Amino acid sequence: MERENLRGIDAMPVGANPFRRHARCVVPESHLDLLTRPLLAHLGTVRPDGSPQVNPMWFLWDGAYVRFTHASTAQKYRNVQADPRVSVCIDDPGQQARFIELRGRVERVEPDPDAAFFAELAKRYSMEGVSPPSGVSVRVVMWVRPETAVYL
Amino acid sequence: MERENLRGIDAMPVGANPFRRHARCVVPESHLDLLTRPLLAHLGTVRPDGSPQVNPMWFLWDGAYVRFTHASTAQKYRNVQADPRVSVCIDDPGQQARFIELRGRVERVEPDPDAAFFAELAKRYSMEGVSPPSGVSVRVVMWVRPETAVYL
Repeated sequence: MERENLRGIDAMPVGANPFRRHARCVVPESHLDLLTRPLLAHLGTVRPDGSPQVNPMWFLWDGAYVRFTHASTAQKYRNVQADPRVSVCIDDPGQQARFIELRGRVERVEPDPDAAFFAELAKRYSMEGVSPPSGVSVRVVMWVRPETAVYL
Repeated sequence: MERENLRGIDAMPVGANPFRRHARCVVPESHLDLLTRPLLAHLGTVRPDGSPQVNPMWFLWDGAYVRFTHASTAQKYRNVQADPRVSVCIDDPGQQARFIELRGRVERVEPDPDAAFFAELAKRYSMEGVSPPSGVSVRVVMWVRPETAVYL
């Protein structure tokens, strides 16, 4: 579907002041529900040859970061190691034309050796008790800070 | 969600023989329904600065091409003009872990001056009668030929 009539295009580079960075959120109030509901996100990364890759992903929004659970053996993980710029697109399944796209970059990757964050997301997505498909030892948490938002 | 345990990764570059190209489809039978049902696709493109962009899109699969309706004024259209490589990701809304990602390139762009293809897609997505948001005159049809498929 065509999505040109965007209600807002925020191009707000986050400032240098870390407090301001934290306080200044690019997500509009009107679309916050898309980040708090357990919807699938579509994560866009760039492959080593410069072509795009899109993967459906669980996520958690904490008001400043979109956090993903990842395996350090995954191609998309290698992609963001080489180029941390990502796009995160979330739609409203109940309203066909409504979505938000957040563009930003991976600021941090932390190990999740006990897969505790994976388990937290599994619970959020009603898949409690499911095991990480690539095993526990390779789990990582990827922190994405949105820098711009496009929404309709 | 983690999607590492992929059932199949097809890396089948399409051949030089045009008949073979047409006959050889990278979409597995097991996931064909994701292309024939009126599901949203997530189209990944690469922006002029090399960062990724993801947009929800209507589409139509004809057995060889994924066709999209576009406005020639859109950023994603400018993206594929500069780099025709795209990723098309489609999930099964009824089965959380099931999806297909098709990677390929835009082979053709054709004008759709009467928005006939837009209207066809609007009907497919139960939005019959809706007007193209950017107007009729800028409508184009974008033809994507999948070259590889990743699915779970």
